[in-house]
Amino acid sequence: MPKPAKQIVEIFPNPAPQRDYVIRHEAPEFTSRCPVTGQPDFGTVIIEYTADKTCVELKSLKLYLQAFREAGIFYEAVTNRILDELVTALAPRWMKVTTNWNPRGGMSSTITAEYTRKQRTARGRQ
Amino acid sequence: MPKPAKQIVEIFPNPAPQRDYVIRHEAPEFTSRCPVTGQPDFGTVIIEYTADKTCVELKSLKLYLQAFREAGIFYEAVTNRILDELVTALAPRWMKVTTNWNPRGGMSSTITAEYTRKQRTARGRQ
Amino acid sequence: MPKPAKQIVEIFPNPAPQRDYVIRHEAPEFTSRCPVTGQPDFGTVIIEYTADKTCVELKSLKLYLQAFREAGIFYEAVTNRILDELVTALAPRWMKVTTNWNPRGGMSSTITAEYTRKQRTARGRQ
Amino acid sequence: MPKPAKQIVEIFPNPAPQRDYVIRHEAPEFTSRCPVTGQPDFGTVIIEYTADKTCVELKSLKLYLQAFREAGIFYEAVTNRILDELVTALAPRWMKVTTNWNPRGGMSSTITAEYTRKQRTARGRQ
Amino acid sequence: MPKPAKQIVEIFPNPAPQRDYVIRHEAPEFTSRCPVTGQPDFGTVIIEYTADKTCVELKSLKLYLQAFREAGIFYEAVTNRILDELVTALAPRWMKVTTNWNPRGGMSSTITAEYTRKQRTARGRQ
Amino acid sequence: MPKPAKQIVEIFPNPAPQRDYVIRHEAPEFTSRCPVTGQPDFGTVIIEYTADKTCVELKSLKLYLQAFREAGIFYEAVTNRILDELVTALAPRWMKVTTNWNPRGGMSSTITAEYTRKQRTARGRQ
Amino acid sequence: MPKPAKQIVEIFPNPAPQRDYVIRHEAPEFTSRCPVTGQPDFGTVIIEYTADKTCVELKSLKLYLQAFREAGIFYEAVTNRILDELVTALAPRWMKVTTNWNPRGGMSSTITAEYTRKQRTARGRQ
Amino acid sequence: MPKPAKQIVEIFPNPAPQRDYVIRHEAPEFTSRCPVTGQPDFGTVIIEYTADKTCVELKSLKLYLQAFREAGIFYEAVTNRILDELVTALAPRWMKVTTNWNPRGGMSSTITAEYTRKQRTARGRQ
Amino acid sequence: MPKPAKQIVEIFPNPAPQRDYVIRHEAPEFTSRCPVTGQPDFGTVIIEYTADKTCVELKSLKLYLQAFREAGIFYEAVTNRILDELVTALAPRWMKVTTNWNPRGGMSSTITAEYTRKQRTARGRQ
Amino acid sequence: MPKPAKQIVEIFPNPAPQRDYVIRHEAPEFTSRCPVTGQPDFGTVIIEYTADKTCVELKSLKLYLQAFREAGIFYEAVTNRILDELVTALAPRWMKVTTNWNPRGGMSSTITAEYTRKQRTARGRQ
Repeated sequence: MPKPAKQIVEIFPNPAPQRDYVIRHEAPEFTSRCPVTGQPDFGTVIIEYTADKTCVELKSLKLYLQAFREAGIFYEAVTNRILDELVTALAPRWMKVTTNWNPRGGMSSTITAEYTRKQRTARGRQ
Repeated sequence: MPKPAKQIVEIFPNPAPQRDYVIRHEAPEFTSRCPVTGQPDFGTVIIEYTADKTCVELKSLKLYLQAFREAGIFYEAVTNRILDELVTALAPRWMKVTTNWNPRGGMSSTITAEYTRKQRTARGRQ
Repeated sequence: MPKPAKQIVEIFPNPAPQRDYVIRHEAPEFTSRCPVTGQPDFGTVIIEYTADKTCVELKSLKLYLQAFREAGIFYEAVTNRILDELVTALAPRWMKVTTNWNPRGGMSSTITAEYTRKQRTARGRQ
Repeated sequence: MPKPAKQIVEIFPNPAPQRDYVIRHEAPEFTSRCPVTGQPDFGTVIIEYTADKTCVELKSLKLYLQAFREAGIFYEAVTNRILDELVTALAPRWMKVTTNWNPRGGMSSTITAEYTRKQRTARGRQ
Repeated sequence: MPKPAKQIVEIFPNPAPQRDYVIRHEAPEFTSRCPVTGQPDFGTVIIEYTADKTCVELKSLKLYLQAFREAGIFYEAVTNRILDELVTALAPRWMKVTTNWNPRGGMSSTITAEYTRKQRTARGRQ
Repeated sequence: MPKPAKQIVEIFPNPAPQRDYVIRHEAPEFTSRCPVTGQPDFGTVIIEYTADKTCVELKSLKLYLQAFREAGIFYEAVTNRILDELVTALAPRWMKVTTNWNPRGGMSSTITAEYTRKQRTARGRQ
Repeated sequence: MPKPAKQIVEIFPNPAPQRDYVIRHEAPEFTSRCPVTGQPDFGTVIIEYTADKTCVELKSLKLYLQAFREAGIFYEAVTNRILDELVTALAPRWMKVTTNWNPRGGMSSTITAEYTRKQRTARGRQ
Repeated sequence: MPKPAKQIVEIFPNPAPQRDYVIRHEAPEFTSRCPVTGQPDFGTVIIEYTADKTCVELKSLKLYLQAFREAGIFYEAVTNRILDELVTALAPRWMKVTTNWNPRGGMSSTITAEYTRKQRTARGRQ
Repeated sequence: MPKPAKQIVEIFPNPAPQRDYVIRHEAPEFTSRCPVTGQPDFGTVIIEYTADKTCVELKSLKLYLQAFREAGIFYEAVTNRILDELVTALAPRWMKVTTNWNPRGGMSSTITAEYTRKQRTARGRQ
Repeated sequence: MPKPAKQIVEIFPNPAPQRDYVIRHEAPEFTSRCPVTGQPDFGTVIIEYTADKTCVELKSLKLYLQAFREAGIFYEAVTNRILDELVTALAPRWMKVTTNWNPRGGMSSTITAEYTRKQRTARGRQ
């Protein structure tokens, strides 16, 4: 199974850290490979988060997602991996990653994984 | 009434068991037969679950659903049966099965059945 | 005002009485008559319920709804009457009847009435 | 097989007889009965025409179409009958009748029949 | 600023006063005038309510809304006025009035106002 | 039957008279009155034309169409009248007027009338 | 490769043989099997024709299409076979068969085959 | 980075201050510039609020939003700035600003920021 | 009236000059200004052409269209100007420019202008 | 600029060579790279053709299109290259290749190229 290069996204300071608000990026051009057959998979990745000190810069997020282009990885694994790596990079108050996959064998799939920082209230989620 | 062969889906280890997250598979090519008239029924089966130790492998899920192709079974029964059999096979923390059926006699139907493991909290449902 | 013949729907045993699950039938070919002008009305009737011991058989439900074809009856009355009669026939744990009506005089209408059996919990509603 | 009463639509003088132009009425609330089973059929009737001396009055057209409510008649027959009767009533330069029928047995149908007066040119058709 | 004539809607007895259920009327052909420029405004008015003793008759509701045709009135004012006048006329258990307005200066607007009778429970709202 | 005031639209010189090209204005906020019942009608007016020496100015076109607000006039008549009056005002090489009307009595209507100047070729029509 | 039983559709006399008109049946519940892998294929079959002396009866057409349920047959072959067999059965003036297939390997397909009787004019096609 | 001129929106008295109701303005023609590349960005700005003593006048709101046309500003910053400036200008009981941005680098973004006045109850939010 | 700077688009050699084929670029982020009021206009520009020796490079086309951002220009004029300038720059065999404009005063507009080189056949148009 | 490996699609005999009919394959998961920036491009490739002696096998067509995954190639060039290579491989009577590309710089593009064998009639095109 191929493995995407370690990719560090670029960040910039949250312009409104005094407020819990929600940022959502939708990337409909995600592609990776099936770890079993090596065939390309295609899907949409949706990243939603409430920033704490830092926001992710859009171009670097695009490059981070492109690094999976030749990776052989299951739907469930790539969704949780993107969540884990972006939580590490951004230390957000809250984050949700959703992946919608094109049909394979007549079936389409969606995976949704969510992270909430321990000590904060429920505000800021949609 | 014909009866689908006993079908064991294949499973693989949940890559993120530390987290309650939701997996959704939508299969729009389901077909079985009306137990009264023997006529084919057509519908979409949607399976949503929060995995515990195991996830269902997609190709074996497709084959499992195909085994109902010649089964004569009511909408309500097939929905609950898929839920029961997948709960047995996967032992998930939570699972919901929805079936949407094409119109018959001018009426279309939807059946929704849900399972929640006893000792867990409400997190992980959508 | 004409009156539909007393119509008893057919029933069959609930295949999963141990579980609260939701059954939904959508009938887009409902027609009755305006009690004031006698003109035909057209609408969609949606019946959702959580069965207790019995489910409604689809063909008999179709015939029950067809019996209103020449009935002169207000939107609000027919919605509550269908709810009352099906609650009597099926003794469900929960039921909701929704009627969506085609525009008349440039206005379209929707009526939604709901029944919940006294002693049960909130589970089983959507 | 029941038979709708002879129905004469009302007419009014074409306000622009010097010009070939197209009038289109779409009636999505048409219902008749299957001549074999007696079950209700539901569909949309679309009438397009280029008037010569007379136009059809809308309310009388509605009543004319309502007269088929209890008629047992095949899709192909009712389409041609509406075309024939309106051509007789209006003597248009051109007319097309289209009927779109709700699914029966999983299949939906559309019938399209057209009339063109002998001595006129192709202008005025869409 | 012109002012619509005092308009009393007609009412009829609620056929199911023993139950909290929701009635919804959608009128997409509302027009009034901008109080500043006198230009026509166009929008959709949606009225939802849970009746107590009386329901509004549809034709009189249509005429009531038509009475604003030449009225010069702000979006916010007309929404609250319709709510106030219908609450007075119907004495409902609950009512919501929503107005959706066509774009002006590239912007479209929606106003939503709600009334709940003091002593009743939350049931009956959607 | 009320009658809209004589309304002269404003014009400006065609910026590309050397070329047959098509200008289309769609006005979804047209309202007039039924000449029989006096009830308001609502529709969309679409004006397409190939200009010769002059184009119609948009604001004056809006005011011209607003002048029908209290006019009692049949669908067929208003469509041909708009075509006739704009052909007189603009002397276009080609013009088509289409009116789409909201449902009345369950039926919606569309009227399409077209003008072509005698001596020109077929170019410039769509 | 399995082979559907020889299936004769039922016919009834064309109610308007004096006129070329178009009949269209759309069957969205077609299923057969891939001749290479044996996996089920799913698609929509659209049959359009101008009848001469006979029309196809709808229920028998449904049964004819159901006979392909276990047939292993390529998209291109099944489309031409349906066209050939229905042309033989109905002897129409014109017929077109279109099949739209659900995605396989990320690709969806459409096949369109058409028959025109030799000695007739182009009228009757859409 | 360019900076829009200080813009004061015009206000008018809330016509129903006794009630918590929601006003929503959607402006799909927002444009600013990317602060890094200077390239134009395009998006929709949605402003929802519950007025206290004052409402914002629509034309002045349009002009306020137009003042960002040449501003170089990040998505996250402009969303929070509009919220802050309108909260200052209107002193609302509650306000939410949402910005939906056209795709850049294959990704589209949405930012949602919300303000609630300290001493009020949860009523008035949608 | 402001005037966009003279803008020369970049070109590259047509990779298939032996064939008439159609290239279409759709730019939904076009903005200019009303020459009368100075208010911003927003629309979509669609450019279709059959290249001869050269194709337009996409980034330079984007910059060319952005140069109208502060231009005060009528819909009809800007459409014909873009057509004229791109015909000069690319010397195509055929070109069509379509502009769709957001509603102003409740009306939306579309302008379509087309160029065909004198000595070529009709092939290559759609 | 990278270059996809020479890829020969597999073929099978046309099951109905006596008839001109149309085969259409739509592949919404095409990806290649921009030859200037190296960034991934995403689009849909539509292949329509009238077979002569051979049809293309679907799985090999999928693999052929996947071979462009790392190719750096302009929209116009890849469209004409696919057409040329498939015409060589299949020797069809007629073929059309359409590529629809996701927006870049706010603009989306479509390229359409068509081949017709010299000596055949116009039949068989849609």
